[in-house]
Amino acid sequence: MSTFDRSIIKEEALKHHLRHRGEISIVSRVDIKDEHVLGLIYNPGAAPACLAIHADPSQAINLTSKGNLVAGITDGSAVLGLGNIGPEAAMPVMEGKSLLFKAFAGIDAVPICLNTQDPDAFIATVRAIAPAFGGINLEDISAPRCFEIERRLKDLLDIPVFHDDQHGTAVVALAAVLNALRVVGKNVDGVRAVVSATGAAAISVSRLLLRMGVQHLTMSDQFGLLHEGRTIGMDFAREEMATLTNRDQMQGVLADALVGADIFIGLSVANLVTQDMIRTMADKAIVFPMANPDPEISAEDAKAAGAAVVGTGRSDFPNQINNVLAFPGIFRGALDVQARRITENMKIAASKAIASLVAPDQLCAEYILPKTRDLKVAPAVAAAVAREAMAEGVARVNIDPDLIAENTSRLIYED
Amino acid sequence: MSTFDRSIIKEEALKHHLRHRGEISIVSRVDIKDEHVLGLIYNPGAAPACLAIHADPSQAINLTSKGNLVAGITDGSAVLGLGNIGPEAAMPVMEGKSLLFKAFAGIDAVPICLNTQDPDAFIATVRAIAPAFGGINLEDISAPRCFEIERRLKDLLDIPVFHDDQHGTAVVALAAVLNALRVVGKNVDGVRAVVSATGAAAISVSRLLLRMGVQHLTMSDQFGLLHEGRTIGMDFAREEMATLTNRDQMQGVLADALVGADIFIGLSVANLVTQDMIRTMADKAIVFPMANPDPEISAEDAKAAGAAVVGTGRSDFPNQINNVLAFPGIFRGALDVQARRITENMKIAASKAIASLVAPDQLCAEYILPKTRDLKVAPAVAAAVAREAMAEGVARVNIDPDLIAENTSRLIYED
Repeated sequence: MSTFDRSIIKEEALKHHLRHRGEISIVSRVDIKDEHVLGLIYNPGAAPACLAIHADPSQAINLTSKGNLVAGITDGSAVLGLGNIGPEAAMPVMEGKSLLFKAFAGIDAVPICLNTQDPDAFIATVRAIAPAFGGINLEDISAPRCFEIERRLKDLLDIPVFHDDQHGTAVVALAAVLNALRVVGKNVDGVRAVVSATGAAAISVSRLLLRMGVQHLTMSDQFGLLHEGRTIGMDFAREEMATLTNRDQMQGVLADALVGADIFIGLSVANLVTQDMIRTMADKAIVFPMANPDPEISAEDAKAAGAAVVGTGRSDFPNQINNVLAFPGIFRGALDVQARRITENMKIAASKAIASLVAPDQLCAEYILPKTRDLKVAPAVAAAVAREAMAEGVARVNIDPDLIAENTSRLIYED
Repeated sequence: MSTFDRSIIKEEALKHHLRHRGEISIVSRVDIKDEHVLGLIYNPGAAPACLAIHADPSQAINLTSKGNLVAGITDGSAVLGLGNIGPEAAMPVMEGKSLLFKAFAGIDAVPICLNTQDPDAFIATVRAIAPAFGGINLEDISAPRCFEIERRLKDLLDIPVFHDDQHGTAVVALAAVLNALRVVGKNVDGVRAVVSATGAAAISVSRLLLRMGVQHLTMSDQFGLLHEGRTIGMDFAREEMATLTNRDQMQGVLADALVGADIFIGLSVANLVTQDMIRTMADKAIVFPMANPDPEISAEDAKAAGAAVVGTGRSDFPNQINNVLAFPGIFRGALDVQARRITENMKIAASKAIASLVAPDQLCAEYILPKTRDLKVAPAVAAAVAREAMAEGVARVNIDPDLIAENTSRLIYED
């Protein structure tokens, strides 16, 4: 996409937002055709439902919209690549996200933009508003605050709490890695991986790769490679990652780690990686420069320098690594079985489900992930996540995963 | 409605809620027909809107759904006549309310049920989630906590904060009083009024009657008439009302105050008022026993005892006094002119607009209020409230009130 095209998009996008004044609307799923229906819904008809829930709060799932309502919550501290722009300014992204939840998985997501960036206040607020929601999707929260916020909310609430910027990205990156490894014929436990960035998404991607069996993984940021004893640019999350990664405790910079590496995953900034750096990587290198809107190295340049498989965050190149492949189906599956939380294994199940949607006979360097608009993805992810939740015992109800996939498809096409 | 009918309603209402699993859904107002529209809405199209709002937060009204989004907030401490049943159990009522906002005024109301009954935590939570909303409708909060919560939120926020149980009820009761006085040919400043109850709604009704010019108003509860120096059943709100009402500082009970009274307004409990008590009232008495679901005295009994005009909260008798006549139009008008708050005069403007919808040649003892399903009410209320907001200087934008009425009608019929 040229610079010229982008300026068109910008003007058109602003006009679009001005014309529509936002994009979401709350509607009735019930046809209020007469006084009788109104009586069933409100007064006196709401009272018996209220009393049934008062007697047994778990009935809220059966008698209210709770089971399909997700709160999308941000404090606007790390919005897209725009930084700390605050709660009002985060709203367009949150509304867009709400529409993606609906379009891909039939989920009703309410955008909630918080007027506080204090973690304690953030947590207290989410805890206070949680009763009406079946799940909490955290969005666009800066690191390392996001780790503490998510961890504490997971402990406090008995519904799924999921920081999409971390885990949605990680799930899709893992799916891309799994299929790329198939393309190049390498095994996960033998590869050397390098992750550029040590922020929230990078840490979640690294954790999921480690859990999947990657033995050699090194993280890198503007202060160099992450290693134990590094004194600059550290916090509790990076300290922990330093102990879990960089098995050889190599010091140096990104270029040093890339020598002989099989996988590069970038979640950092544009133009950080040169063709010469790609040329030092191992044979059949997998290169995912995912920085947005401009990648660490362009797909063309990475290919020309010898990368075997290239994926970016961009829709105008093959292999778009976009978390819209993950979060709708993950929440759909978790909500349907009333999961208490979303576990690491549920995320891996989602990655495998996404990867499996590329048929073996179609899998190639240019096609390792389903398209972001593919409406078969969320049903498959939902089924896989639900199956794993039931297997792990975090589901409150048991439902045939095939039925969950069918139902998800029905919701998508109804919409 | 017989007891038998009510049990039918209960069974049917529970089945209705079980079948639908709640009633609200969040949908897109934009047809996401292709990748291009998705790009406009989300990535990269959301970013220019985010940046425009970051540069000028007031643009959130023009670029997001904020201007039509109302948070309906409860802590479940005083739900309908059901008492303190908690946040989950309040959800059916909150969803029903959300549908009423939509059906009558095209407003998108998000139900938020708070898992705290501490006023400080309640206020902190609402303040934290406020940025994405154009208004706050407080619901089903027990007195006297509701007074402090509303007052402090009004001071903290620059969007309308409205406790519907108080003010919606007061606005419609005042509309009913205004038209009933026309029917019986009495003036507001000469009448003696008695309000049964000293809770939140009763206090708001009393305040609005006083502001409208009622000189003689006495409140009564289970501890007798409210008067200065009463020592039982008092709190800061009742202390204040004791100084503002009961001009003769009469002590005694409800029956004592009713002798010679022109208006009875009940917001208390079933069967509190006898026919003998009605017979002691002044000639051409106005009797509004509004306790729900069973009034202080039945409409038939009140009529038979000589009441000239009778209104209740029930839909199965003439003159239903229901706040659905008020809150949709009040919020519509306030949102449309981006009012900073909802003032006493805006409430009175709403009352007068409601009363004016009964044509003079149709006004009679059996018809003092428009029907709750009358779709002309909210447009008229919205226009009147907006006009008053502009006159008082609490509106951020000026819009022709006729245009607001037209636009409200269009929203209702589109829906």
